[in-house]
Amino acid sequence: MFDKERLAQQMDFCREIDKEKEVFRQSFVCSGSRRENDAEHAWHMAIMAFVLQEYANEEVDILRTIQMLLIHDIVEIDAGDTYAYDVEAMKTQAEREQKAADRIYHLLPEDQAEFMLELFREFEAGETPEARYAKALDNIQPIMLNDASEGKDWKEKGIRLSQAIERQSKTKKGSAVLWEEFSKPLIQRNIDRGCIVGDVDLEEF
Amino acid sequence: MFDKERLAQQMDFCREIDKEKEVFRQSFVCSGSRRENDAEHAWHMAIMAFVLQEYANEEVDILRTIQMLLIHDIVEIDAGDTYAYDVEAMKTQAEREQKAADRIYHLLPEDQAEFMLELFREFEAGETPEARYAKALDNIQPIMLNDASEGKDWKEKGIRLSQAIERQSKTKKGSAVLWEEFSKPLIQRNIDRGCIVGDVDLEEF
Repeated sequence: MFDKERLAQQMDFCREIDKEKEVFRQSFVCSGSRRENDAEHAWHMAIMAFVLQEYANEEVDILRTIQMLLIHDIVEIDAGDTYAYDVEAMKTQAEREQKAADRIYHLLPEDQAEFMLELFREFEAGETPEARYAKALDNIQPIMLNDASEGKDWKEKGIRLSQAIERQSKTKKGSAVLWEEFSKPLIQRNIDRGCIVGDVDLEEF
Repeated sequence: MFDKERLAQQMDFCREIDKEKEVFRQSFVCSGSRRENDAEHAWHMAIMAFVLQEYANEEVDILRTIQMLLIHDIVEIDAGDTYAYDVEAMKTQAEREQKAADRIYHLLPEDQAEFMLELFREFEAGETPEARYAKALDNIQPIMLNDASEGKDWKEKGIRLSQAIERQSKTKKGSAVLWEEFSKPLIQRNIDRGCIVGDVDLEEF
């Protein structure tokens, strides 16, 4: 039986998430012309998830990984983007995002709201193979953009290697190969060209 | 065995597709503040695909549908966005897009290039349950945006109902429910408020 109210709720959610296109992140798009928004970031990672799947440390359910990547930043519609190097904002991030998740995912019918909240919490907790791999991608995608846009974002903020490594700590847990073969050489190149301040020894990580 | 060259090809592709964020479509985002780009459009549809899955006419492999939606507009990096009501541009669209597909997907290792090309061709042909449902979403998402942004795009171009229906003809094939219960009432509302010119009778479709 077709349920009019159910479809109306689903469409309210589909319209609401359009706002994610207006939440801007710190990373620049590769051309450096402007900052990237959350919807673009999610799209980019969702494709990277299946292109790079062979490098995940563990076997992953790729559909679940993609769904997680597509929806986990929806909370930023209310909570805003919390910059990974903003220590003060990161203290209140979890609380702000939980409140947003409760509001936005609950626009959906109850069964679908529960599914979305589960995906969101799974990503946040980072304790399943899918969440670990998704978090690795969530780290790799912005450094790929920062590198392509000539380290503009790192330079503007005077980012030090110790900060970059702290942020990248989750990459290894999701994909040791991508950490060793992609992230490390990329970070080294950006130390060499003066975009990241080398305050520690990269070889130790 | 880790293959350095393979990873380099995959990363070249991941960087190249960043350009999709700079291919702009005709539809405005819901707030009406600016036009939407292809990456945002693909992200939006990929989420809608699993939120609205229960309305697909046939059973669909949702992972394949999502992958199709995520990647099929990559060709527009070279071929540009072809406006659905631009009859001249539509004549050369297939050729321009095929050439683009050959270049961009072939940045990937051969096995992955083949997979992407298959997905792309499957979407274009529209002959599988997944492609039919994906095409329905590709129609529904822009009218949802056009409606939310107060019919701005339709009004600017003086779109007539017969044109809107031609474009929407694929929705029914992918989802009769979404055509009847979402698209038709939405189109009717936009005729009533003067955003679409009612030159034919909607009840006949």
